Amino acid sequence: MRLLGKQEIEDIAVGAALLGTGGGGDPYIGKLMALQAIEEFGPIKLLSVDEVPDDAFVVSSGMMGAPTVMVEKAPSGHEAKVAFQSLEKYMGKEVFATFPIEAGGLNSMLPLALAAQLGLPVVDVDGMGRAFPELQMVTFYLDGISASPMVIADEKGNVTLLNTIDNLWAERIARSVTIQKGGAVMFAIYPMTGRNLKESGIHNILKQEEEIGRSIRLAKENNVDPIQEVLKITKGFELFRGKVVDINRKTETGFARGTAKIEGLLDYYGETLEIRFQNEHLIAKTDDRLLCVTPDLIAVLDAETGLPITTEALRYGARTVVVGIPCHSKWRTSKGIETCGPAYFGYEMEYIPVEELVGKGVALK
Amino acid sequence: MRLLGKQEIEDIAVGAALLGTGGGGDPYIGKLMALQAIEEFGPIKLLSVDEVPDDAFVVSSGMMGAPTVMVEKAPSGHEAKVAFQSLEKYMGKEVFATFPIEAGGLNSMLPLALAAQLGLPVVDVDGMGRAFPELQMVTFYLDGISASPMVIADEKGNVTLLNTIDNLWAERIARSVTIQKGGAVMFAIYPMTGRNLKESGIHNILKQEEEIGRSIRLAKENNVDPIQEVLKITKGFELFRGKVVDINRKTETGFARGTAKIEGLLDYYGETLEIRFQNEHLIAKTDDRLLCVTPDLIAVLDAETGLPITTEALRYGARTVVVGIPCHSKWRTSKGIETCGPAYFGYEMEYIPVEELVGKGVALK
Repeated sequence: MRLLGKQEIEDIAVGAALLGTGGGGDPYIGKLMALQAIEEFGPIKLLSVDEVPDDAFVVSSGMMGAPTVMVEKAPSGHEAKVAFQSLEKYMGKEVFATFPIEAGGLNSMLPLALAAQLGLPVVDVDGMGRAFPELQMVTFYLDGISASPMVIADEKGNVTLLNTIDNLWAERIARSVTIQKGGAVMFAIYPMTGRNLKESGIHNILKQEEEIGRSIRLAKENNVDPIQEVLKITKGFELFRGKVVDINRKTETGFARGTAKIEGLLDYYGETLEIRFQNEHLIAKTDDRLLCVTPDLIAVLDAETGLPITTEALRYGARTVVVGIPCHSKWRTSKGIETCGPAYFGYEMEYIPVEELVGKGVALK
Repeated sequence: MRLLGKQEIEDIAVGAALLGTGGGGDPYIGKLMALQAIEEFGPIKLLSVDEVPDDAFVVSSGMMGAPTVMVEKAPSGHEAKVAFQSLEKYMGKEVFATFPIEAGGLNSMLPLALAAQLGLPVVDVDGMGRAFPELQMVTFYLDGISASPMVIADEKGNVTLLNTIDNLWAERIARSVTIQKGGAVMFAIYPMTGRNLKESGIHNILKQEEEIGRSIRLAKENNVDPIQEVLKITKGFELFRGKVVDINRKTETGFARGTAKIEGLLDYYGETLEIRFQNEHLIAKTDDRLLCVTPDLIAVLDAETGLPITTEALRYGARTVVVGIPCHSKWRTSKGIETCGPAYFGYEMEYIPVEELVGKGVALK
């Protein structure tokens, strides 16, 4: 067990936003919520997965909806509490600990804030090792763990409890409720045992986020390039460098969808990178080369500071470095690729691991 | 306490469809479900409201969605059982009895079928005294009784439990879930005490439905006009007689909406009646006269048999008599008219009681 204080929160927020690959919610709001919770209730207890008893009842918490809406609709903290209490009542069990469902500026931080409020520990694990836009896109799903019973709570006090036959139905119904409730809501989801969590989760994700955040923070005083530090920790690759020239973003069917265009600088002069996203970045390509594709991670970093930039924060003229990071091996199985590979999102292409694309590059037909 | 057998079910189904004012679901499916439940589990126990203890826990059951879809998607009976069990679990109380939310071919019968299956009594009461398209349009709402906690269950096995801050939110979220679930679902709704039910419900509605159905059935052998019998029991008025010449019906935002046109015959020759509906009939008017408007009831009857015709069953060429029936006095309060008068449905007109419109008639501006 470790205690997380303010510095750890600051670092985790940065690393989580980076692994959020453009989505996962606004890191500023998430950080403020966690910092305020620490201020009020003291440091947050972080457990490694191995410290959770096999029969403990654990539940993930976070927010779903379009990040474009989440920015406008900061959660009060009260919703998550209501969501947990409703789930405990329905299942007749007390929650032992919570954990993030994904890496992301908001969704890595909300469980921390909630845990502080409720006096619960947080487990250092998540279900993605990155962020994805839909509820079934978790390693738990690959292992047949049900997303429901799940609870959705909005800031007005409306509570919706779903008990669905599979996780695709959970996503479908929860998404339509989210849209009705204004486009962004809190959830308590994937109730499971400690043993499930151990077997199916992605371990030590908060630790990795903290390392990423710390290395970016310390790069300047250590006189090193923050981008190189990030690549070292994540085993990632530089894909592109350039200036943002076009952002096309709309909120539809409950998601933020769109395209960002980045004009190449230095080695990349004369090329234009296009990033397609649905909450998270999904594809990075130039006119004739494919550079990185989901489920591998595509992160856009500020060229100078190395800080990650979410799709909502991406602005014309920003100088960026685009980084590709290999996803967790659980996503490279056939069910993993079926669940969140390019075909699921409607792109007619095969998944090719980023390390094969980088270097030689693969020509687009 | 009375026991309802097959003949009573047949009669109630007809009367309920008539008070369903074109909506309330398909009477044939509802009747078959109730008859089959009797076949399997024996007669249904019907309690008058006065026989329900003040502190008993009672819950309404039925189906929501577009009648156009309900016809295609007959409920299995299993869903309602699941919905009740989920609600009992969440509220930690056992259901003492169920009751219909509205009068209608399907929604008056489903609680009977469910009650037989679960061995529960049905209470002779509803929340409308007719049918209306939205969940908050009940006399319970006028008295501040909450629709939630409520449960929605579909035929696949998905269960959604809502606990909303008010009944308009219940309607809004439940409607979007209904659409996602294919356009028609079962619900368990308006959990309340026996005392609430006594104070806010519309009493003896099943008894009235049975009287209407019986009088239509016996009219032929008694050699009387079934339409006149209906007018006597309901204190209604003949509004129009004619032949259906046009039906314009579409299923949108989870409702069946449209217009029916009826060309006048006999006394009404040369006039055309227009009926506008959203699941239920809302307005009956000719080119220059307003004849009846919600919350008063507009029923379309077969001119020969007196049997009610729902909007889905209305066919070109059908010979009909259109009847206007004064609604329950609870609907004629200012909150009642605000809740389901013409303005709520987007018609720019005042509510005028049918007995004022009939006879002198009110010219349309």
